[in-house]
Amino acid sequence: MKGYSGKILHVDLGSGTFEVEQPEEAFYRKYIGGSAMGAYYLLKGTKPKVDPLGPGNIMVFSLGPITGAPISGNARHCVTTKSPLSGTIMSSEAGGYWAPELRFAGFDAIVVKGRAASPVYLWIHDGKFELRDASKVWGKFTADAEELIRAELGEPKARLALIGPAGEKLVRFAAIANDLRHFNGRGGVGAVMGSKNLKAITVRGTIKPDWYNPELFRTLAKAGSEKVNAEGFYKTFRDLGTTMNVDWNSDIGGLPTRNWTMGTWEKREDIRAETYRAKMMDKYGGTCWACAQSCKRDVKGGLEAPWKVEARYGGPEYETIGMCGSNCMISDLPTIAKANEICSKYGMDTISAGGVVGFVMECFEKGLITTKETAGLDARFGNGPALVGLIEMMAKREGFGDDMAEGTHRLAKKLGNAAMACDMTVKGKEFPAHMPQSKRTMALMYAVNPFGPDHVSSSMDGEFSGEIGETDKGIGIYDTVDFKELGFGKAKAVAYTQRAVSAIDTFTVCNFCFNTWTIFSFEDLVACVNAATGWHYTVAEMMILGERRINMLKAYNVREGFDSSDDNLPRRLFDEALIDEGAGKGQKVDERAFLEARKAYYEINGWDPVSGNPGKTKLMELGLEWTIA
Amino acid sequence: MKGYSGKILHVDLGSGTFEVEQPEEAFYRKYIGGSAMGAYYLLKGTKPKVDPLGPGNIMVFSLGPITGAPISGNARHCVTTKSPLSGTIMSSEAGGYWAPELRFAGFDAIVVKGRAASPVYLWIHDGKFELRDASKVWGKFTADAEELIRAELGEPKARLALIGPAGEKLVRFAAIANDLRHFNGRGGVGAVMGSKNLKAITVRGTIKPDWYNPELFRTLAKAGSEKVNAEGFYKTFRDLGTTMNVDWNSDIGGLPTRNWTMGTWEKREDIRAETYRAKMMDKYGGTCWACAQSCKRDVKGGLEAPWKVEARYGGPEYETIGMCGSNCMISDLPTIAKANEICSKYGMDTISAGGVVGFVMECFEKGLITTKETAGLDARFGNGPALVGLIEMMAKREGFGDDMAEGTHRLAKKLGNAAMACDMTVKGKEFPAHMPQSKRTMALMYAVNPFGPDHVSSSMDGEFSGEIGETDKGIGIYDTVDFKELGFGKAKAVAYTQRAVSAIDTFTVCNFCFNTWTIFSFEDLVACVNAATGWHYTVAEMMILGERRINMLKAYNVREGFDSSDDNLPRRLFDEALIDEGAGKGQKVDERAFLEARKAYYEINGWDPVSGNPGKTKLMELGLEWTIA
Repeated sequence: MKGYSGKILHVDLGSGTFEVEQPEEAFYRKYIGGSAMGAYYLLKGTKPKVDPLGPGNIMVFSLGPITGAPISGNARHCVTTKSPLSGTIMSSEAGGYWAPELRFAGFDAIVVKGRAASPVYLWIHDGKFELRDASKVWGKFTADAEELIRAELGEPKARLALIGPAGEKLVRFAAIANDLRHFNGRGGVGAVMGSKNLKAITVRGTIKPDWYNPELFRTLAKAGSEKVNAEGFYKTFRDLGTTMNVDWNSDIGGLPTRNWTMGTWEKREDIRAETYRAKMMDKYGGTCWACAQSCKRDVKGGLEAPWKVEARYGGPEYETIGMCGSNCMISDLPTIAKANEICSKYGMDTISAGGVVGFVMECFEKGLITTKETAGLDARFGNGPALVGLIEMMAKREGFGDDMAEGTHRLAKKLGNAAMACDMTVKGKEFPAHMPQSKRTMALMYAVNPFGPDHVSSSMDGEFSGEIGETDKGIGIYDTVDFKELGFGKAKAVAYTQRAVSAIDTFTVCNFCFNTWTIFSFEDLVACVNAATGWHYTVAEMMILGERRINMLKAYNVREGFDSSDDNLPRRLFDEALIDEGAGKGQKVDERAFLEARKAYYEINGWDPVSGNPGKTKLMELGLEWTIA
Repeated sequence: MKGYSGKILHVDLGSGTFEVEQPEEAFYRKYIGGSAMGAYYLLKGTKPKVDPLGPGNIMVFSLGPITGAPISGNARHCVTTKSPLSGTIMSSEAGGYWAPELRFAGFDAIVVKGRAASPVYLWIHDGKFELRDASKVWGKFTADAEELIRAELGEPKARLALIGPAGEKLVRFAAIANDLRHFNGRGGVGAVMGSKNLKAITVRGTIKPDWYNPELFRTLAKAGSEKVNAEGFYKTFRDLGTTMNVDWNSDIGGLPTRNWTMGTWEKREDIRAETYRAKMMDKYGGTCWACAQSCKRDVKGGLEAPWKVEARYGGPEYETIGMCGSNCMISDLPTIAKANEICSKYGMDTISAGGVVGFVMECFEKGLITTKETAGLDARFGNGPALVGLIEMMAKREGFGDDMAEGTHRLAKKLGNAAMACDMTVKGKEFPAHMPQSKRTMALMYAVNPFGPDHVSSSMDGEFSGEIGETDKGIGIYDTVDFKELGFGKAKAVAYTQRAVSAIDTFTVCNFCFNTWTIFSFEDLVACVNAATGWHYTVAEMMILGERRINMLKAYNVREGFDSSDDNLPRRLFDEALIDEGAGKGQKVDERAFLEARKAYYEINGWDPVSGNPGKTKLMELGLEWTIA
């Protein structure tokens, strides 16, 4: 078997011992990488109802078969663990530079269990590994810790997946950073790392992967680069990145504003892509290892909000602009960039952080939270200093920040019924910046996704409206899906595209590089898998792989007691129409249509239409009967 | 839309009128061709419980998107109609020369309805069409009718899909021939043609299809030709054709012998491929239009059994050798060739014909049938003249032949219980020459296939035993399937490979040219579809297409009242172990395992585990909700 390192490193932080596993090819072929591989170890290696922040939880850092191939989109790794935010399994991916470095260091995955007695970091280099004392970097911001560890090792080229103070303090939505600007952001994977006293996994390698057909990578990479440099969509996407989303989301009434009560905002001009470029950037955006698409957002040096913004932490993506910006009614881009910087240096998810602040602001305006809690901050919508102050409080768990660090859902329950009506979470996890009221796919997806609301676990409404042969993605969606309808067609589109994206995540390739609207297609993706491994993979198998991963995540959740009653939406989405005067006006989710679509989605997946859980036959079909043995 | 002619010809034989339909691209994209397109017209255009031999039945002759592309395997058409043998929908494919000629004549399909008042033939040439009097050729053997019609039209290059006297006399397993050696053989499609007074569909065309990317066909065809000419499997298959099967079926105890009671035979040497080549051929076998694989069997001129064998009717394939040879215990190859010739000239399925004779021979030996019925023929196993005589009797419906022409199942019911124990049919259709006792896939497939027992509607056991990445076919079967077991793995393998073959048949390409063991792969197949049409088809869509066709065939059968009680096997397979002394010894089908595998198969397909029928959600998922509207 080519491509893979063939080695998986197991580390027990409690005993400080290591084990190197060399699985059979059949294992790789079936579980591939990403969170399919991660779920395998979680299902096998943890007890049901384990405390996510206790030593019984495990974390899996895993790559895919192509990771480290010199072509766009192959610089990603996945962290799988039980989430302290949702209590579900969590699959959290990040791009950057860490993943290829782990491959070059000789491993396909790292399985971390137990808890170190005192802060440590893991150092892996060219097949060797050791745990090292991290007490000197504990408490440090990500940038400072990274610098100190590189210096200590004398390895300026070492790459670190590390946590900041938020992870150490077990903020339930703490993230893991690599190269300061790339994050396993969602679901609190950084808190799990903190709970294990593990500050960083530092990797450095010079082992060249043994690809089956490296020529294909060269050919495709050249074609990809030409696409990005030609005038057209790919170039625009490179120039504007995800901040492009401000415009089209606004156009359909889907820009989250005022804690999800409005879908358009009169200040959209202030936060849109072109404004961002003009005001905050002075060159192309950043990128991940070997990527021609280069969609990341930077901020130029010397940027000042009321505070100086540190450029080394990168700039806000659309999600950050949506959640810390419009949803909190903050239109000052440097202020949003500051919020982003704080989240980055403390190691915290900007989506959940912005979601908590939006919730707090609504509660503040309703008198459910006062300046007593906010330490004097005037936490009304639109107050930039309040945003920045609240985010810093939660990152430090300072005062009321300690409650905010528990996430919206726990905080709402503590505040009582009136606050709970403003709680915009599913499974305790905050929504990303795509509105279920105006994007019907998201209404379904936020409810059913095994690791809670997610915008990149399926395609979105806007992606289904084109011509036959153009937008069907080659995965069996030909019937044009009505944008406005949450009907059967949408349930099918969600189920099918969820499988496709699930496979993308299992290969740990980038959803922005390998998809239908991207520089590389699904056929290119399987061609890359075959070029890496020498296998004979097809898009048909890719879809089954995607289904296998989803069922593994479900199998974990079933074990934890989840069922269809957890696959629901906040009442606000059903009961309260959007109050903006634009395209969002009057939009809400039709509850009956939602319930019917959810049932159809379960049935299309071969799951029980009532419990929403996979039965024995489906698990057997996917080779997963052992998950219920 | 490229590739397709874009026109479908509807002909009403009752009124003698025509209509040319020009469907939207969406129609082609969804129903593609073959029996998916055929089932569409059958479901829309016939009433439930229609008499298969009455004017209310319709026949669809349909191509696929690549038909007529200059590359192996693209010379096939499908006939879809309600079968007079099984009462189910029938999907019967043939290779040869007719299909590309229909495309060059400007049509993608012909839908025939009604019944002509007197014999007619249909003449289609370069977009034009007419019905012509066939009274002068009615009653003629296929070769003679073909010659006369070509002469009448002055078109020596015209291609004919036509029936012989068996079709005219409504033999329930009459076939449709083209170029004398290629047959839509199974299920009595020739009888339906006969019931409509339609002797032939004669086509001739010079319209060049407008392919999207003809270059790909040239490249692939060249590669295919090189494969066939290199030493190795493909060359062997060209040299030996399907007669290769005698050996490997014998090795596993799966050569049908003595009406399905033995799986090995001491005379296998007499009927194996090398003996055939040495004794009956003097050059390479025949072929279909533009095919490099050239697997067809010829017989040399001047061959004599007790009778002269006419070479122009071609030679027996493995199926004929198995059913008219070993299953009747006839080891003389020229006698088998004679039986084949009679079936060909009368236009009759050699599989069903051999099956009926095997049944009659067993009944004769048991005293259930006597020389009174057989007109003096000593119809014991092994008597060559009896084989030839019985086949001629049934082709002519002469005396007892009239009962035999009704097929094994109807004949057995007429003869009573003792005979019914020897009835080796499912849904009234005779088995092809692959034994369910030793090939577990076939035990399941013969029971569940919508148009009855079929050996080329899924892969077979022997195809699943290889290494990872080699035999998984890229469609999601990785777990090695135990050859001896009829368990869940086999149910899944049947379900998945049935979808793949179903798509192959919907594209109307050749299963012996596009598969995993063939010169072209599934990826090559979808690449050809895209080269023909300009679409963006993938193997994933191919699998869904296959599933759609199966569900359409099922939807038709459900309408006719079929359910799981019809998806069963003759008791002999469960109750009586094979009595040969070789590899077949003691083999039978485990009934409990069969029932469990059948249930698993239903569930994997998303069908009701009890009725075995598709429900609303599955039909909606495949865009087929209209079939139950």
